[in-house]
This record gives sequence, C-alpha cells and structure tokens, in this order.
Amino acid sequence: MIPMVEIKLLKQVDLSKCTFIEGFPGAGLVGPMAISYIISKLSMEYIGYVDSELLPPLVSIHNDMPLPPVRLYYSKEHKIAALFAETSPNKEASIYHIADTIHKFIEENKFSMTISLSGIPVEKPDDSVVFGIVSVPKLSKVLDGADIKKIGEGVATGISACLIMRAAIEEESDINLLVQVNPEVIDPKYAEMAIEKINKILGIDIDVSELDKEAKEVEARIRDLLQKSKEAPHDIDSPQPQGPSMYA
Amino acid sequence: MIPMVEIKLLKQVDLSKCTFIEGFPGAGLVGPMAISYIISKLSMEYIGYVDSELLPPLVSIHNDMPLPPVRLYYSKEHKIAALFAETSPNKEASIYHIADTIHKFIEENKFSMTISLSGIPVEKPDDSVVFGIVSVPKLSKVLDGADIKKIGEGVATGISACLIMRAAIEEESDINLLVQVNPEVIDPKYAEMAIEKINKILGIDIDVSELDKEAKEVEARIRDLLQKSKEAPHDIDSPQPQGPSMYA
Amino acid sequence: MIPMVEIKLLKQVDLSKCTFIEGFPGAGLVGPMAISYIISKLSMEYIGYVDSELLPPLVSIHNDMPLPPVRLYYSKEHKIAALFAETSPNKEASIYHIADTIHKFIEENKFSMTISLSGIPVEKPDDSVVFGIVSVPKLSKVLDGADIKKIGEGVATGISACLIMRAAIEEESDINLLVQVNPEVIDPKYAEMAIEKINKILGIDIDVSELDKEAKEVEARIRDLLQKSKEAPHDIDSPQPQGPSMYA
Amino acid sequence: MIPMVEIKLLKQVDLSKCTFIEGFPGAGLVGPMAISYIISKLSMEYIGYVDSELLPPLVSIHNDMPLPPVRLYYSKEHKIAALFAETSPNKEASIYHIADTIHKFIEENKFSMTISLSGIPVEKPDDSVVFGIVSVPKLSKVLDGADIKKIGEGVATGISACLIMRAAIEEESDINLLVQVNPEVIDPKYAEMAIEKINKILGIDIDVSELDKEAKEVEARIRDLLQKSKEAPHDIDSPQPQGPSMYA
Amino acid sequence: MIPMVEIKLLKQVDLSKCTFIEGFPGAGLVGPMAISYIISKLSMEYIGYVDSELLPPLVSIHNDMPLPPVRLYYSKEHKIAALFAETSPNKEASIYHIADTIHKFIEENKFSMTISLSGIPVEKPDDSVVFGIVSVPKLSKVLDGADIKKIGEGVATGISACLIMRAAIEEESDINLLVQVNPEVIDPKYAEMAIEKINKILGIDIDVSELDKEAKEVEARIRDLLQKSKEAPHDIDSPQPQGPSMYA
Repeated sequence: MIPMVEIKLLKQVDLSKCTFIEGFPGAGLVGPMAISYIISKLSMEYIGYVDSELLPPLVSIHNDMPLPPVRLYYSKEHKIAALFAETSPNKEASIYHIADTIHKFIEENKFSMTISLSGIPVEKPDDSVVFGIVSVPKLSKVLDGADIKKIGEGVATGISACLIMRAAIEEESDINLLVQVNPEVIDPKYAEMAIEKINKILGIDIDVSELDKEAKEVEARIRDLLQKSKEAPHDIDSPQPQGPSMYA
Repeated sequence: MIPMVEIKLLKQVDLSKCTFIEGFPGAGLVGPMAISYIISKLSMEYIGYVDSELLPPLVSIHNDMPLPPVRLYYSKEHKIAALFAETSPNKEASIYHIADTIHKFIEENKFSMTISLSGIPVEKPDDSVVFGIVSVPKLSKVLDGADIKKIGEGVATGISACLIMRAAIEEESDINLLVQVNPEVIDPKYAEMAIEKINKILGIDIDVSELDKEAKEVEARIRDLLQKSKEAPHDIDSPQPQGPSMYA
Repeated sequence: MIPMVEIKLLKQVDLSKCTFIEGFPGAGLVGPMAISYIISKLSMEYIGYVDSELLPPLVSIHNDMPLPPVRLYYSKEHKIAALFAETSPNKEASIYHIADTIHKFIEENKFSMTISLSGIPVEKPDDSVVFGIVSVPKLSKVLDGADIKKIGEGVATGISACLIMRAAIEEESDINLLVQVNPEVIDPKYAEMAIEKINKILGIDIDVSELDKEAKEVEARIRDLLQKSKEAPHDIDSPQPQGPSMYA
Repeated sequence: MIPMVEIKLLKQVDLSKCTFIEGFPGAGLVGPMAISYIISKLSMEYIGYVDSELLPPLVSIHNDMPLPPVRLYYSKEHKIAALFAETSPNKEASIYHIADTIHKFIEENKFSMTISLSGIPVEKPDDSVVFGIVSVPKLSKVLDGADIKKIGEGVATGISACLIMRAAIEEESDINLLVQVNPEVIDPKYAEMAIEKINKILGIDIDVSELDKEAKEVEARIRDLLQKSKEAPHDIDSPQPQGPSMYA
Repeated sequence: MIPMVEIKLLKQVDLSKCTFIEGFPGAGLVGPMAISYIISKLSMEYIGYVDSELLPPLVSIHNDMPLPPVRLYYSKEHKIAALFAETSPNKEASIYHIADTIHKFIEENKFSMTISLSGIPVEKPDDSVVFGIVSVPKLSKVLDGADIKKIGEGVATGISACLIMRAAIEEESDINLLVQVNPEVIDPKYAEMAIEKINKILGIDIDVSELDKEAKEVEARIRDLLQKSKEAPHDIDSPQPQGPSMYA
C-alpha cells in the first residue's frame, strides 16, 4: 500500500548543511510566489523534481521548456535548495506520503534547516506582521531576531505542517513562516513579507523591488495549473479534452 | 492490505502495570477535554504519538511546539499513560486498524488496565450519573465502588468500543466511562464528571477546580482541528488552501 | 487483495457432525431474532466471533459484557453451533469474502449441516407457510417431512445465498429457511415460524412460548446496531460523535 | 492488484475442439435467453461456474437447486460448451479481468471457436437481419454462408467485445452475433434469430418452436436477478434486507 | 500498487531511429483524426496495441476486424510508428501509468523523436498558426523551420504533456504540436494543420487533400467510442446493456 512518490535528482550536488525552502500552493499562493522569485533572484539551478502518481498529471512550460510541476532548485553559493510547487496532491493520504518522502529527502541529504512558507486566510490581513512556528525551542530566538511573531497555540494542516511535525519529532530545524492573506486576493506583498523574513533568518539580501512585476506571471501560471487540476479527470469521469494553455 | 498505523515512542519508558487512558473526539468532546486536563494536572510527559496515513494530515501547535494530533503522555509517578487525540480517523476500516494497533500496544507494553472516556449524546443529559462498561466481570465491583452505573445492554461504536471488545476477548481489564452529553453543547462539566470517576477508580486526586478555565482552550483547538479535518482534501477535490489557524 | 476476515474461537470444541445455524440481519430480522432465542433456550455457550475489517466497528453490550457483533455460540448437548449476527457487511465484495470464510469454517470443522434463516419481503405475508431451498436433492425429503414448501425457481442474495451455493457445489448439506415478512414490521411470529421448522428438521423441541417477550429486547438492540451502522463513518466523512447507546 | 476470478469445473471433460458460446445480460437479454434455451434443447450438462468477487453476490435457484449466476454447460454430443450468465460485473476493470479469465480458459482448453450473442439497441429493430463480427478474415465466409450481415465499421463494448478482440489478436476463431433489439421490450424473437444463425454456423438443428414458452421463465428470473443486482449493497450503504424471491 | 499497462507487439520490427507519433482524444479530436489519416496515407501496418485495465473495455471494428482501441501502427519506409487512440483513460493516476509505460516503450525501442498532437480549446481559433512545445532546446530550430510558434510559458495536461516532460528530463527529442480548436466543432482543418507541420518537421509529403472525406468516418467512430466510454459501467452502477454500434 505504498504509493509511488520519489524525489528524482537530475544531477548530484552536495546538499548537506543547505537550507530547504518549500511552500505548496495554498491561501494567497504565498509559497509558490515567494519561491519562484527567490529562484530567479538567486539564479538557482533546476536540479530535480517530485515524480508521483499522487500529483495531478500536469506539466508546466517555462522558458520554452516543459517541466514537472514540483521542482527542486539549488544555489551552491547561498547553500539553498527550494522546492517550487505549481500543484498540490488531492487526497489526504497523498499529503501523508508526499510529506514523508520530502522529510526523508531532507534527512538523507543532511539539510541544516527547513523553511516553509504559507498563508493564513483571514478577512482583514495585517501586513505588519509575519507569524512563525518552530520545530525546536532553540529556533525561537531566530524568530525573535527576525521580528517574527510566534504562534503559540493553533492548528496547521498540509505538507508544511506535516514536515515541521516530523522535524519536531526528530529534533531537526524547521521554521514555518505564515503570512496573513485575504484568500480572495493574490498580492505580491504577501511574498515580499515572506522573503524579507527569509533574508533576516538566513542573513542574505534578496532584493524584493522587482517582485511586483514577476509575481503577475507566476500567479497566472499557477492559477492556470490549479484550474487544470480541477478540470483534469479526477476519478470516474468520461474522457476530457486535454492540452495546454499558453501565455504567449 | 494492511495500512500504515504505528505508535511511535520518543523515549523508552516502562509502561508495565500502568493504566492506559484514551478518548478520541466524540459527542461532547469528553475524552479530549478530560485527558488534556489530566495531562496538565499530573504534569505528564509527552512520550510518543500515532503515525498513520489513516489520520487527517493535521498538526497541533501547543506551547510553541508543532505536535502530532494523537499523542501519548506518561506519568511515571502515577503510572498512567494517556492518549490525547485531537482528531479522528475518517473511515470504518481505519477505526478497525487504529484500534487494532492501540490494542496490540497495550498488550505488548503490559498495561494493567485501560480506561476509555466517551459521551453519550442525549437530549437532556443527567449530570448526576456516569455510566460504565467493563471488559471482565471482576471490574464490576470497581464500577460499584466508584458509583458508576453499569450499562447492561446496549451498543457502542468507535475506537473505545473496539478496544473494550478486544479486552473482553482477551480477558484484559478495560473500563469505558460514559457521560451523557448534549451534543450541541461543550461543557467542562462533562470532563469533570469523567475525571471524578477516574479519581475514584485509580485512587488518585486530580483537582478539577481549574477545569473550567483550561477547558476553553482545549475546546477551541479541538473544534478548529475538527473543522480543518472537514476542510482538508478528503478525496478527489481540487487543491485547497492549507495552512495554520492560531489563537495568539 | 484478500481482506482480513477470520472466525476466531475462544475455546477448542469438537464441532464435527454439528449443525451450523446462521442468519444475518435482513428483512424482518428473522435470523437474528430466531437465533438469539435459540441460543437462550438451549443455553448455548459463546465460543467465538468473526473478526473482520469488513464489518462496521460496532460492539454489542449484553449481560454487562462488550461483545463482537457477530458471534458463534455452541451447544454440546444439541450438537448445534449458531452464528448470531447483529450487523452486516456493507459491500458486495465483503459479502463474497465473509461467506467464503464462513464456508471454509464449516468445511474445516466438518459440520454435518447448515441451516440459514431469512425473510422474504412481501406486501401481505402468509404466515401459514415457510419456504425452503436445499443444497442437495436428498434434503428435499427433509423439507417435505417438516412441511416446508420448496422454492423451485427464484433468486437469492446475501450471505445465506452464497453459503448454500457453495454447499451445493461441494455437495454439502445446507437448508435455507425463508419466512414471508412485512418489511415494515418486526414480528416475533416470524422467528417462531422459523424455529418451529428447525424443531422439526433437527428433531428437537425448542419451546417458542416465551419468544414474544424476549424478541422485543433483541429487536431493540439490533435496530440500534443497524442505526449505528448507518451513522458510523463509512467513508470520507468528517469525524463523528461515537459512543454507546443503552437500554438500562 | 489481480482480483479473484476463476472458472471452476465440477468435473473434468475434454473441451478441445468444442465451440464456446457466451452472452452476458445486455440489451434485449439476447444472450441469456438464447443460451438458456440451447442448454435445455441440447440437454447440456452443468459442468462449472465463474467464481469471482467481481460479480454481485447472487444465487439463482433453478429446478430446486441453488446455482452460481454464471455457469458453464456442456454437450459432449454437440461438442458445445455454453456460459449462461444471469448477472454481469459492475465495474470497468471487472469486465477486463473477467474477459481475460474467460479468454485464458478458452485457450487453455483448446476450444475451436467462440460464438458470442448480444443485442444492438435501436429504436426500430429490423428482425430480418442478424449482424456479425469475426475475429479472423477466414470466418467471413461462415457469416456469408449463414446469411449474417457483417459489421464493417463500428464500436463494441463489454465482455463479448473484449473476447473477440483478444481472439483477433491471437488469430483464434470468434464470431459475435448481434440482433437488433428494442431495449424496452424482451422478445423471444430475438433469441430465435440468434439460435437460427447458430444452427447454420454449427450445422445443427435446434428447434426454436418452444422458445416462446420457455423464454418467459428465463426472462422472469433474469429480470429479478438484475433487479437484485441493483438492490444489493454496492458500496457504502447501510445493511439491507437480503433474501430470495421466488416464482413458485 | 502497479496497475496492468502493457504495449504488446504483434510482430517484431526494428523501431530504432523511428519517429513516434501519438495523440489521445482531446479537444477537437486533433490527434486521432490526424493520426488516422497518416496511417491510411502512409499505408502503415498494425503492429501492436496497449493492453490495460485502465482503459474502458471498448473494441473498435474497422475493416471488418475487431481491434483494441489504442493501437500502434508502423511504416518501415517512413520510419514512423503512430499510436492511434480511440479512447482515453478515465483517472488521473491512469494517465500517470499509461504515460509512464509509453515513455519506457519509446526509450527501450530507441525511437529518435516523439511528436504529440493536441488541440487547445479557445473561443475563436486562429487557423493561421500552429503552436509547439519542445523537450530540448536544440529542437527550437525545428519549430522555426516549420513555422511553428513556440509556447514559451504555459501549462499542459494529459498523456502528451507527461511524455514531453519525461523526454525533457531525459533529454530526449519530443515535440508537442498544438492546434487551436473550437471545442464545439470537429473540423478536418485541425488535423490538416497538424499534418502539414509534420510534413515539414519530418521532410515528408502527406497529401492532405482527401482528409475532408476520411475525417468524417473517423470522427463518427471516435464520437461513438467516447459516447460508449461514458455509458460503460464505470464504477458501481447496475448492469447495463452492452454491445456494438455500427456504421454499416
């Protein structure tokens, strides 16, 4: 009863002591928008992808190239690997198994820390504050140093939540960054808030001034992917038109 | 066709001759509310959790820490281990397999007795009486001594029911405590009634005077977890926003 | 793809040459009501149960004891084993596998005959006649001797049907007794009619005069069990209140 | 992921060079009505059945005997084996696996030819013509000789279609006979048309003059079986009344 | 958890350095209509088929022969193999596994290139342009040479998309050709546009002047197959009439 989920590397790189950043599509698309921008700004290299029967059969076309919808990027200089996800698993048990595979990948490659990015849907987002959860007490001072407000009591769901839970159990370092978002609106501000905190946590300096421009493109593709996810034959429907959309 | 269900221990402790207390979320949230309070009052230690693809992919954040939603706590002094569950399995066969795993854990660790806590939904609850079921006749006098009214004829369902059935078959000691509840209302009184009976059964003295205050917090988190369970992608839905709630 | 279904014996008894009586809940609850009464009148001993992930996770509380909902009882004196079922499997393939397991149990234990009890739902039941199906031609004279009207042409479904089909294939002895019932009404008369025919077939003398009284209790429990079956989380629903009912 | 499907023989017979005739319930019930009549007229012997978790848990009672709903009959004299099916599998993948099992059975027993019988639902059936499909070109002259109109272009579905496709791939002999039917009407004429063509193909002489009379009985039982198929617990329903119907 | 999907060859041919053309039914039926015509014009030979429990149990009757609905054709002269699909898998995970099987077949047989044909549903199709996606940068000049407009950014789904994604990962040659179509209309023009581009890419000269005539027939059969797919018993329905349609 173990489904097919694998992180496949296109080249061998030394990921030990790197930071692993991930954020599957969720409220406000915080994770994908921020990670896409980070990849671009740090000129990260595409080094792998998630191969799984649990993901919708979607392909992303980017810079003329067809790409798996969940991809791993790497910056040797900044010692960061980022998982850019343009789609999400559709079933509960899929989340369990995909998170399990990612967590094992993080452990086997001896990453030093994981940072997950999500949105918290609220009616009136407060853009002056970013929230955080940490897997081990010693990371609390990292939150403090980056002016991130700790969530002391609450509930989380999804892949980021499963990852930080496993990290907590294994006493590994994991920070979940959470931006309040209006779920009706996709605003580059959300990604900006997340990236500014990553800058502080990692002591790097990703310039967010061009986020506004690039975010539109990312948003368009991800919205389209999520739309295709819905249209894709999920279960027992009759054959459906399949094919690409484009933003030429 | 055996799904993944495991009770994972974070540390080795000697559980032999301990009492095992459990109560998954059900009518009136009797089990989780009472067990949460007991854990707090007896300063029980977090020693393990249930890892299973059969549970919703939820994480509880408590005292700044991300935690699995079904956790095992331990008090060496009182020789009690308590399974605190903030979520429930969603399928019939899942209940079978989770109960089977818990029962094997109880047997392998040579617990001396199991106490399960549930609510009986009724329109007008009678708060002067707590009902009980026992796995073996010799426990009847324990019910009598604690002024618990025996259920002689009836029907039960869920994990507690499966556990006491297996205990009865193996002639192990198991008591199900049942509090009448108004399913529309969450009332700390329910947990209080259960704890008072546990005090009598185990000859301990858990002070219930602060239950009122603490219960509110527990209720909030569990309500939120159950809500997230409903919202979590159960089967074939399109990707959904995922992320934490908080009670900052 | 073989699901977990097992008949577990609590003690070793010699079942060879015994009669096996069964009747899962169906129209008019004929089987459970008659079998419950027979168990009581013949002071049969509880010797085993069906353990299966294919049955709803229900537990029956009877005489202060939690019991599996499908149980095997035994009378050494009368050389009868009776399977008392307070619930039914919910899926087609489950019926296949449960019937297969019961049939193998009957063969391995060298029972001499099987008698199944069911109701035929009709608008205006004729209570002057009981119908029968036999697995082998030589049993026709048994029907004649007991004044049971043979069903020459027809269709049957469920566990009893699967058992007699397998018995017919293996040339084993199996009689299905069928009482016409008004599916809207639970009437002890139905069970009485079945038991009177069992008396004649087996040459025993179960007094049916107290059936009226006992039947009410059985009916209440089984109705409640069936109700709980419906309420139990079948597939992908959100967590539900679980717990016992009672007839104190 | 291979489900349980087996053709079980009740006795060993030499089926090599026999003709295999089949026709599961479909539009107009052409297959079951014709095959039932052929079995009766040729005094064919019941020699086996399909045992499968993929079929509804139904039992047919015929001539006082409980019988599997999909049975194999044999006439040594005419060198014919006929699969009489009173029910159908309910799922797509079931059709794949049942057809696969039947095809392997035909190959392993070295049948010389397969003849399948189906109805084509049309608004105004033309009863002057029977259509045919053949698995290999050399059978075209058989169609011509029997005055059967070839279907040159079209689409077929179901077990017969899967069988002739596999026969075509393996260059084995298979003829699908197709009678136009009004799907609202069950008319013995349909079976008569099919049998007359079988007479010509096999050079035998089954007298169809009594078909009218016998067809009514067969129709009644199959209609009832199909009805029970619908009523049988398919998936996640609550326990349902189970039991026989009868045509006493 | 690996389902049955296999590409079965009816004869051994040397496919190395051949071009693999595929196009499952989708918007505008571009793939099946173009491939059917190519097979006819190049007198391609039927050499294999996809055998899978994941496809609807349909059979195509063509030139008097029953054929699997997904077939492989071969032209030794033109060094082309084409997969003609008259039906599609119904589930997400099926697409994953079927694409995986096709991709392995392409690799194992050392094809030199894959060309996939699809439609892009739009409201007002522009018939002056064909779009393309390539798996490796060096194929861009092939697109340019054939006057095909590259899709630089976008999203694709279905088998073609999964194939080009895998080709991109393995640095194999794959071109997806995409014709804008009005999803409400089946127009031979769509197939014509695709074939003209194939002519240019492969340096061959398939005459499209008869496409108009042949397309009608193909369209009729595929529409019927898709209709039958919908009618075929998908999951838990009651038995349904099965049988052929025809275009005599």
